[in-house]
Amino acid sequence: MLFKDATTEEIELKMQESWMAFHQYRKFPLSKRATFMRTIAEEVEALGDELLQITGEETNLPEARLRNERTRTIFQLNSYADACERGDWLEARIDTANDDRNPPKPDIRKMMVPLGPVVVFGASNFPYAYSTAGGDTACAFAAGCPVIIKAHPAHSKTSEMIANAIMKAVEKNNLPAGVFAHVYGKSFEVGKSLVMHPFTKAVGFTGSFTGGKALYDWANQRKEPIPVFAEMGSINPVFLLPGKLTESAPELAKTIAASITLGVGQFCTNPGLLIGMEGNGLKEFILALGKEIKNSVPAKMLHSGIATAYKEKRKLALAQDNIELISDLEVEENAEGIPTIASASAHAFLNNPVLHQEVFGPYSLLIKCKSKEEMLQVVQHMEGQLTASVMATAEDLQHYEDVVEQVKNICGRFILNGVPTGVEVCLSMHHGGPFPATTDSRFTSVGADGIKRFARPLSFQNWPNEVLPDELKNENTLNIYRTVNDHLTKKIIE
Amino acid sequence: MLFKDATTEEIELKMQESWMAFHQYRKFPLSKRATFMRTIAEEVEALGDELLQITGEETNLPEARLRNERTRTIFQLNSYADACERGDWLEARIDTANDDRNPPKPDIRKMMVPLGPVVVFGASNFPYAYSTAGGDTACAFAAGCPVIIKAHPAHSKTSEMIANAIMKAVEKNNLPAGVFAHVYGKSFEVGKSLVMHPFTKAVGFTGSFTGGKALYDWANQRKEPIPVFAEMGSINPVFLLPGKLTESAPELAKTIAASITLGVGQFCTNPGLLIGMEGNGLKEFILALGKEIKNSVPAKMLHSGIATAYKEKRKLALAQDNIELISDLEVEENAEGIPTIASASAHAFLNNPVLHQEVFGPYSLLIKCKSKEEMLQVVQHMEGQLTASVMATAEDLQHYEDVVEQVKNICGRFILNGVPTGVEVCLSMHHGGPFPATTDSRFTSVGADGIKRFARPLSFQNWPNEVLPDELKNENTLNIYRTVNDHLTKKIIE
Repeated sequence: MLFKDATTEEIELKMQESWMAFHQYRKFPLSKRATFMRTIAEEVEALGDELLQITGEETNLPEARLRNERTRTIFQLNSYADACERGDWLEARIDTANDDRNPPKPDIRKMMVPLGPVVVFGASNFPYAYSTAGGDTACAFAAGCPVIIKAHPAHSKTSEMIANAIMKAVEKNNLPAGVFAHVYGKSFEVGKSLVMHPFTKAVGFTGSFTGGKALYDWANQRKEPIPVFAEMGSINPVFLLPGKLTESAPELAKTIAASITLGVGQFCTNPGLLIGMEGNGLKEFILALGKEIKNSVPAKMLHSGIATAYKEKRKLALAQDNIELISDLEVEENAEGIPTIASASAHAFLNNPVLHQEVFGPYSLLIKCKSKEEMLQVVQHMEGQLTASVMATAEDLQHYEDVVEQVKNICGRFILNGVPTGVEVCLSMHHGGPFPATTDSRFTSVGADGIKRFARPLSFQNWPNEVLPDELKNENTLNIYRTVNDHLTKKIIE
Repeated sequence: MLFKDATTEEIELKMQESWMAFHQYRKFPLSKRATFMRTIAEEVEALGDELLQITGEETNLPEARLRNERTRTIFQLNSYADACERGDWLEARIDTANDDRNPPKPDIRKMMVPLGPVVVFGASNFPYAYSTAGGDTACAFAAGCPVIIKAHPAHSKTSEMIANAIMKAVEKNNLPAGVFAHVYGKSFEVGKSLVMHPFTKAVGFTGSFTGGKALYDWANQRKEPIPVFAEMGSINPVFLLPGKLTESAPELAKTIAASITLGVGQFCTNPGLLIGMEGNGLKEFILALGKEIKNSVPAKMLHSGIATAYKEKRKLALAQDNIELISDLEVEENAEGIPTIASASAHAFLNNPVLHQEVFGPYSLLIKCKSKEEMLQVVQHMEGQLTASVMATAEDLQHYEDVVEQVKNICGRFILNGVPTGVEVCLSMHHGGPFPATTDSRFTSVGADGIKRFARPLSFQNWPNEVLPDELKNENTLNIYRTVNDHLTKKIIE
C-alpha cells in the first residue's frame, strides 16, 4: 500500500508539534497569516496540470470541473486572506474606562483569538475546495490555528501534492513546521484518535451524516468537549408553486434536470426532493423533466464506494410502495450514476421515513401535493437543510406565504427561482443549516465568516495600551473596524 | 407545597404554545422586540420594594446587593433592547448581483434569524440578573425567540413575581401569550423534559458543573442535538508576580480578601486560586491576607443546599495532605460561609486533582511556586476558566511573558492588576471561557453579544427587494450597518 495509516506514535508526535506551533502561530500578525495563505495559493497553482491529471485519475472528475474547483480553491485562500487582514471577523469591541463613575468603570477590550489545533477531514467530492487546502484549512489558518489534515483515502495522491505545496509555503514564510500536518488514515481509528486527542481544539468535516455524527459524538464524549463543524449533506427541497409551473414548466424542468445531474449529482446542494402542487402545470413539468433526464448520460462516480452506495440507496428508494419512476433511462443495469427521478404522493412521503433519506447522486424524488395544507405538512415533517428553493411568481408568494415562511425556518440558504447547486464564495453566503444538515447551524463552511468557527472572544480588562495586541491598541494602526463605546468606527482612541 | 412541579401535560401544552408563538414573534420588527424588552424593565421596576423584601427572605441576600442586582437587570433589558435595534448583531451581509460575470453572480443577502424556543434555567446566585428576566431571557427575546423559564426552586416567589411582570409586558405589547412561559420544577425530570422537547431549540444555564454538563449531554443525545450555553463556574486564578508582591503586598491582600468574601463568595467569578512566587513579598502577602480574613464576618449563604455543599467541599479540601490553613477564624464550627484561605506547594497542587476543584463560597487556595518553570507547569495543568488575573509590574510582564501568554489561553477574560469579581455589562465583556468554564467558549452570557447564542445566519438568494426582510432591503430604512460587497456601510444600495 502506497499510503500507510498513521500510527498512534506518529499521531502523538504530530499533535505535540501542532500544539507547540500553536503557541507561536497564534501571536503572528494578521498580515503574516494572510501572506502565508497567499503563498499556499501560489504553490497550489504552481503544481500545474499534473495536479489536475492525478486528481482526474483518482476521482473520475472531468478536467474542466477540476480546473474550476482549483480556481475556486485559490480564490478562497486569497479572499479569506483579505478577510483575515480586514479584521471584521475579530469583532473588536472597546469600552473605555470611566473613573468618574461609581464604581469606576474599567477599560475592557475584546477580540477573537484562535481556539487551537484544528483537525480537518478531507471531503471525497471536493478534492481541492473542501480538502487539504480547502475552505476549512483556509479558515483555520486565518483564525490563527494550526491544521492537521486527515487526507481522504479516495484521493491520497492529490492530498499529498497539495500538502507538499502547503509545506513549501510554511518554509517560505519561516513558520514553525507544526503549523501544518498531513495524516493518512483509511481506518476509523486514525480519525477517532485525532478527534479525541487533548490538543485538538476543533474539527472541520464535510461528508456523510454517519461520518459527521460519529465525529460529533466522539467530540462530545471527550473530557473536554470540542466544537465540531460537520456539514453532513441535505436533500435540498425545491418547491414548485402552481403559478410558476403554469408559466414556465419546460424551463423549470430544464434548469432542475441540469442541477440534478451536475457533477453526477455529487454535490451537497444537489436537489434531491421536488415538491409540486398537482395540476396541469405539474403534469407538464413531469413530462418535460422525464425527457430532460432521458437525454442525460450516466457517468462514473467519485469512487466505487459512492457508486455502490448510490445503487443501493436508489434501489431501496424505488422499492418503496407507491413510488413511480418518472425517468426511464435505457442503460445497462450496471452503469454507474444513472440519473433517476421518481415520484410519490405527499401522503406516501409523510408516512414513509425512507423517502426522506438522502440518495447521494443524481437522484430526485418528486412529491405531489393535493393542497396547500398538504404542502405545509410536508414542510413541517422535513428535517434541517442546507438550502431550500421556491419556484414562484409574485402571486404564488402571496398565496403561499405561510408555506414560504415555514420553508425559511428549515434551511440555511433560501433561494427564489433558482437551483441550489453553484455555491458562491462570498461573505453573504451561508453554507450551513439546521441539524442534520450540519452539527451547528450558527456557523458557515463557505465564505470568510467561516473563520469564526475556529475562534473565541477574549476580553482584556485594565491592560495598558502598550501591552495590548495591535488590534486593540488606541492607535488602530491596522485600520480595522471596532465598536468603541457602542459605535462602530475606525477612529483612533484619543 | 406552594409551587408544584409542572406535569408532562403542562409542559407539552406550554411547548406547543411556545412553538406557535415563535412563528409570529420571529417576524416582529426589531423595534417591537425592543419595546417589549423595555416594558419588561418597567414592569420589573414597578414591583417596587416588595420584590426586594421577598427575594431577601428567599435568598439571604442583603437589600443593597439586591437593589444593585435589580438595577443591573433593568440595565441589561434596556441596553440589550438598544443593541437589538442597533442591529450590529444581525451581521447583515449583502453581495449584489453581477450579470456580466460568467457565470452570472446572484444577489445574496444574509442576516441572523432566531433559532426557536429557548429554555432558560434560573440561577440560584443571581435571582434577578441571571434568572427569570435575566441576561439569557433578554438575549433570547432580542434574537426573536420565545422563552420558557425553569424557575430556580430556591426563589420561586421571586420568580413568580417577575414572571407576572413579563406577562404584563406581553399583554401590553399585544404579543402572543406563548412568547413567555414559566415552569416550576424541583425535580430533575422537569428540566430534562424541557431540554429534550423537540420544539426546544436552545438552552441557557448558569450554575454548577454537574447541572450544566447533564443538560449538555441530554441536548447532544437528542435526535436533533441543540446548542446549550451553560456557564458552569470557574476557580478564576489570580497570579501574583514577585515585583508586584514586593511593591504592594498589603494592598493586594486587601483587594483580594474583599473579592473572595464579596457576597459570601457566591459569584462565578470568585477568585478561588491564588498562585504566587515564593519570596518575602509572598510572605508579607500571606500575613496580610490572613489578617484581612480574620476581620471578615461569616454570613448566611443563598440556601441550605449551598451552605452544606460549601462545608463539605471546604472540609474535603482542607483534609488533603500538605495543606496549610492561612486564615484561622474563631467562629462556631456550624457557622455558615466561613471565609477560608489555605495554601499548598505547586508540587502538591500538580499531584492532587482535588485541589483543582471549585469550592463554591468564600474559599481560596494559595499555591506557592519555587520557580517560573513551576508556575508554567501550574498553568499548563489548569482547566478552562471564566477569568484569569495577573498582578504584575511592567517588569514582571516582561520577565514572565511566557507565563502571561499561557494564562491568556485558558481564560475568557484576562485582567491586569484587578480582581475578577464585578462583571461589567457592556459589549466588550466576554463572560465565557474554555470548557469546563462553559460548554461553548465561542459565546458570552453577559453583554449584547450574548444575543448571538440564540440566532443563526440565513442567506436569501435572488429574492426581489420588496419581499426581503427590512434589514436587507436596498433602502436600509432601519439605518443599520451592513457589509455590502465587502465594505461595512450604512449606505442605501442604488
